[in-house]
Amino acid sequence: MSRTVLMLPGDGIGPEIVAEAEKVLKKVNEQFGLKLSFDYALVGGAALDATDNPLPDETLEKARNADAILLGAVGGPKWDSLPMASRPEKGLLGLRSNLKLFANLRPAILYPQLASASSLKPEVVSGLDIMIVRELTGGIYFGQPRGLRELESGERQGYNTYAYTESEIRRIGRVAFEAAQQRGKKLCSVDKANVLEVTVLWREIMNDLRREYPDVELSHMYVDNAAMQLVRAPKQFDVIVTGNMFGDILSDEAAMLTGSIGMLPSASLNAEKQGMYEPCHGSAPDIAGQGVANPLATILSAAMMLRYSLGEDKAAEAIEAAVSKVLDQGLRTADIMSGEGRKVSTREMGEAVLAAL
Amino acid sequence: MSRTVLMLPGDGIGPEIVAEAEKVLKKVNEQFGLKLSFDYALVGGAALDATDNPLPDETLEKARNADAILLGAVGGPKWDSLPMASRPEKGLLGLRSNLKLFANLRPAILYPQLASASSLKPEVVSGLDIMIVRELTGGIYFGQPRGLRELESGERQGYNTYAYTESEIRRIGRVAFEAAQQRGKKLCSVDKANVLEVTVLWREIMNDLRREYPDVELSHMYVDNAAMQLVRAPKQFDVIVTGNMFGDILSDEAAMLTGSIGMLPSASLNAEKQGMYEPCHGSAPDIAGQGVANPLATILSAAMMLRYSLGEDKAAEAIEAAVSKVLDQGLRTADIMSGEGRKVSTREMGEAVLAAL
Ligand SMILES: CC(C)[C@H](C(=O)O)[C@@H](O)C(=O)O
Ligand SMILES: CC(C)[C@H](C(=O)O)[C@@H](O)C(=O)O
Repeated sequence: MSRTVLMLPGDGIGPEIVAEAEKVLKKVNEQFGLKLSFDYALVGGAALDATDNPLPDETLEKARNADAILLGAVGGPKWDSLPMASRPEKGLLGLRSNLKLFANLRPAILYPQLASASSLKPEVVSGLDIMIVRELTGGIYFGQPRGLRELESGERQGYNTYAYTESEIRRIGRVAFEAAQQRGKKLCSVDKANVLEVTVLWREIMNDLRREYPDVELSHMYVDNAAMQLVRAPKQFDVIVTGNMFGDILSDEAAMLTGSIGMLPSASLNAEKQGMYEPCHGSAPDIAGQGVANPLATILSAAMMLRYSLGEDKAAEAIEAAVSKVLDQGLRTADIMSGEGRKVSTREMGEAVLAAL
Repeated sequence: MSRTVLMLPGDGIGPEIVAEAEKVLKKVNEQFGLKLSFDYALVGGAALDATDNPLPDETLEKARNADAILLGAVGGPKWDSLPMASRPEKGLLGLRSNLKLFANLRPAILYPQLASASSLKPEVVSGLDIMIVRELTGGIYFGQPRGLRELESGERQGYNTYAYTESEIRRIGRVAFEAAQQRGKKLCSVDKANVLEVTVLWREIMNDLRREYPDVELSHMYVDNAAMQLVRAPKQFDVIVTGNMFGDILSDEAAMLTGSIGMLPSASLNAEKQGMYEPCHGSAPDIAGQGVANPLATILSAAMMLRYSLGEDKAAEAIEAAVSKVLDQGLRTADIMSGEGRKVSTREMGEAVLAAL
C-alpha cells in the first residue's frame, strides 16, 4: 500500500518551510517504512504567476488523488490588488471546498520551552492546550449571493451571505464533540445567537447533539465574550467549535496567546479523513527568501498528517519528540527567540529536527 | 436652554450602576449649572417583563426627544430562550437603528492604577490607549434578508446578510479619520478583503477618504491578523475602524487587554451628535442585585456624554478626575481588586466619586 503526499509550497515563506518539512517526512518515511511517495504542485500566487489560475486543474486533480496534502501558505502584497476571483486565496479556498475539507482543527498549545514568548503573564498561559474546531467549507466564506451591486439610488453596495444548513452544523459538531471526548470532555460552542439567526440554528443543533455525547459538557458563548475570555482566562477552554469566520478570528487570537504562532500546525479534514495540513501562520512576505522563517509549524503539520490522515501515530510521535528535543537544545528561529537560546536559520532548524529523529 | 438626559437602566446590574452614575450627573449638574433634566424609561428585559416589548413606543419616543441617553445594559439568561424578535437585545438594537446611532466609539485605556489587573505583561500594555470606531447600524446586524428557511431537501438553513453601501462606509470612515486627527493620526481599517466582497468595498472607500485627511496615516489589516496583533502588540494601534460584527469582537478583545472592562465607557452617536452612552461590559446577571458591580464604566460613560453630546467638557473632566482620584485612594470594586486596595461596594464607589467631585 503506497500513499501519496502532495506538497503545495505556495507563496512567501511557503517554499522554504515546506522544504524542511519534506526532509523530515522523507526521513520518517524511511525509518518507519511508511511507503509514502511525494508529488508537487502549484497553488496560490505561485500558480497565478505560472498559469494565471490560483488553483490550476492539474493541482486540483493531484489534490483529489493524494492521501494527504502539505501546504505552506498562500498570498502576498504582490497579488493584493487583483480582483477577488483571481487572488491567491482562491486557490486555498478552492482546495478546501472542492475536497470538502469541512473540519479545521487548530490546536493552540504553549510549549513550556517557549513560555516566555507569550505576551500574556506566565500564570495565565502556562500549560495552555486548547483545540479550536472551525467549520471550513460553509458560512460567510462560501455563502451565495455575494458581490457588488448598484442600488436604485445609484450607489454601490457590497454584500455577502452567512448561511449554514442543519447538516453542515451537525457534521462539524460531531467532529468537535468527538475531539472533546478524546481530550478534557468540555466543548464550548461559539455563536452570536442573540443577533444572528444563522447562529440560532447553530446553537439548536449543538444542543441536539449533546444527547449523543452525554460524557461531554457543552456550553455556549457569544463570540464577543469568547474573544474576551481568550485574553482573560484562556485555560478555561478545552475544545471550542465555531463557524468559518468566527473560527478564523478566534483561532488566530488563540494561537497568538502562545506567543509562538510559528509553532502551530493545523489540519483540514473531510469525511474520509483525507486532509490538508498547514501551519497556522501565513506567507509572511516580509521575511520570505531570507532563510529565517520557522519551519516547525510545518514540520508539526506533517506530524498531524501522519496521525490524522495516514494513521501513522508512531511516526507522528517521533517528529513531535524531535521538535521538543531541538527546543530543549535551545535552538530558536528569530520569531521564537527571546533572551536565551541559539538563533538558527530555517535550514539549521530543519537539520536539527532531522538529527534528533 | 434645558436639556434632557434619558436614563435607561435595563437589566442585570444595569439599575445598580446607572443609579450611581445618576447621582454623579446630578451633582455636576448643580456644580456646573448644566440645566440638565432627567427622564426614565424601560428597555430590554425590564421592558419585556412590563410591556411584552423590549423597546416600548414610549421609550423610543422619549429617546428621540432626549439630548442624550445613558444606558446600563440589557439581556440575561431569563430571556435567552425567547424568539429573536422579542429578545432584550432587540431593545438595544432598535434604539441604535431608530436613532441612527451609526458611530460607536469604544476607547480601550489602561488605567495606570490598575495596570496589574491585565492578563498581559505590563510592558505589553502599559500606557495602552486605543480608540475603536465601530459601525453600529449596518453590516450583518441589520442586513436583509435574514431568518430560517426550509431548503428543497427538507432541511433547514439559517441565513443572514452582511451588506454595506458606499455612504454607510464613508460616514463611519469620516468619524474615524476625524478621531485619528485628534489623537495620534494613525488609523487602521480592519476588514477581510481577501475573502468578503462587502469588505472590498469597505477598503476602497477608506482609501478614497485618505485624500481628505492627508495628515492621517491609513493602514489596512485583515480581521484575523487584527485579533492577533491586539494580543501581540496592542500599542501599535491608535484608532481602529471596522464594521459592526468585527467591531463587536475586536472592541471586546481590546477592552479585555486592559484587564478592567468594568472601567470602560462607550458612546454611540448619530450625525447630529445625539448619543447613547453605555459601559462596555454587559448586564452581568451572575452578580446582579448584590451591590458589587463596578459603576465606574457607567460614570465614565456619563462623562463621555457630557463631552460628546452636551458640549460640557469641564464637567466631563471633573468626573474623570474624580474617578482617577478614587482609584488613587485605592478604592476597588471586586472586578478590579488585585492585591492591594480597599474593596468597596457599588454604592460606596459611587459615593466616593461624589465626594471626590
Ligand atoms: C488566507 C485566508 C483566506 C485564510 C482564511 O481566512 O481562512 C487564512 O486566514 C486562514 O485562516 O487559513
Ligand atoms: C448585546 C449585544 C446585542 C451587543 C452587540 O452585539 O452589539 C453587545 O455585545 C455590544 O457590543 O454592545
